[in-house]
Amino acid sequence: MKIYETRTAPNPRLVRMFLAEKGMSAEYIELDIAAGENLSAAMRAKNVTTKVPFLELDDGTVIGETAAICRYIEEIQSAPALMGNSPVEKAIIEMWRRRVEFGFFMPVGMCFQHSTGYFKDRMTPVAEFGAVSGKMALDFLNVINDQLATNEYVAGASFSIADITLLVAIDFARVMKIRIGDQHPHVQRWYEMVSSRKSAQA
Amino acid sequence: MKIYETRTAPNPRLVRMFLAEKGMSAEYIELDIAAGENLSAAMRAKNVTTKVPFLELDDGTVIGETAAICRYIEEIQSAPALMGNSPVEKAIIEMWRRRVEFGFFMPVGMCFQHSTGYFKDRMTPVAEFGAVSGKMALDFLNVINDQLATNEYVAGASFSIADITLLVAIDFARVMKIRIGDQHPHVQRWYEMVSSRKSAQA
Repeated sequence: MKIYETRTAPNPRLVRMFLAEKGMSAEYIELDIAAGENLSAAMRAKNVTTKVPFLELDDGTVIGETAAICRYIEEIQSAPALMGNSPVEKAIIEMWRRRVEFGFFMPVGMCFQHSTGYFKDRMTPVAEFGAVSGKMALDFLNVINDQLATNEYVAGASFSIADITLLVAIDFARVMKIRIGDQHPHVQRWYEMVSSRKSAQA
Repeated sequence: MKIYETRTAPNPRLVRMFLAEKGMSAEYIELDIAAGENLSAAMRAKNVTTKVPFLELDDGTVIGETAAICRYIEEIQSAPALMGNSPVEKAIIEMWRRRVEFGFFMPVGMCFQHSTGYFKDRMTPVAEFGAVSGKMALDFLNVINDQLATNEYVAGASFSIADITLLVAIDFARVMKIRIGDQHPHVQRWYEMVSSRKSAQA
């Protein structure tokens, strides 16, 4: 299978780390999103929303959206489970993944897009919203700190996609100077543990 | 099981419709989010992010986030499948659900929150971003129209959670005067078909 990606972006890293945890590999095709390589007619024909990464199976089927790519991988290679085993486990992991996405990853992305104007050729940056989003992301680290005070990992006792999601978002957030601080000792403990996994280098 | 919800909001409707398609029921507890009933200490102890709906199981386990609630329901009651059967089906449905969420449901929600100031006691509305979001949502209806030109349902040949997600978002979008237009005949065809399902009244 082929993965079209942009190596420095956080969602492609999430998928690479997810695959590495599964012990799986893929052929990677780099797209320069700053130069708009993902916006060409050929790429739009594969992936209408133009977001990276997207997965192309050997029969030509395209799976876009990071969560959908991870879902596919989890389904074809169940061990180690990164999205839970029982119905409750699956739901709790999904809940925390969504909380991390909506409370942190997305605001970090909005802060990036609206503060830096990186994609201003293809969207309308609103600087005030960028600032609001950055503050929202920083506030969410308090929620995560409380969760990690009594849980080893984001969604409980086991490493999961929720941890991968938070890790790539926290590392990406440094670009906007949104960082774990002294007020987040449990996030710091977790960050050191999860960053030291071999898959974090994928 | 109990579901804490706010009846007029789109995500609670999504869960009610999902349950109705499964032929399942739940005890519903209404929270007045405008009055901040979801923000009380008792509610925060159950559901730290304060979002509705959230599910409480008989053993006290709380599952927040609409996608996680639906995941749980799909796992305990697999038929009829609303999130796919094979790995590829599951991934394609997840992909379209995410596209609908990020391309339409979320921009509609941002338009609502930032244009109306409905939650201005608990967030910072940025009117300019609200306007940008509304335009983004309207543009996305063209993407969906193209998809529905060659597919009976949003994610292909079968009714799925992607259809429920789009339906509740389209109905909610009317509040911001974001509507299906003459330029979206395939969305119109789909809307009439999906709206007529009994579950749409749940």
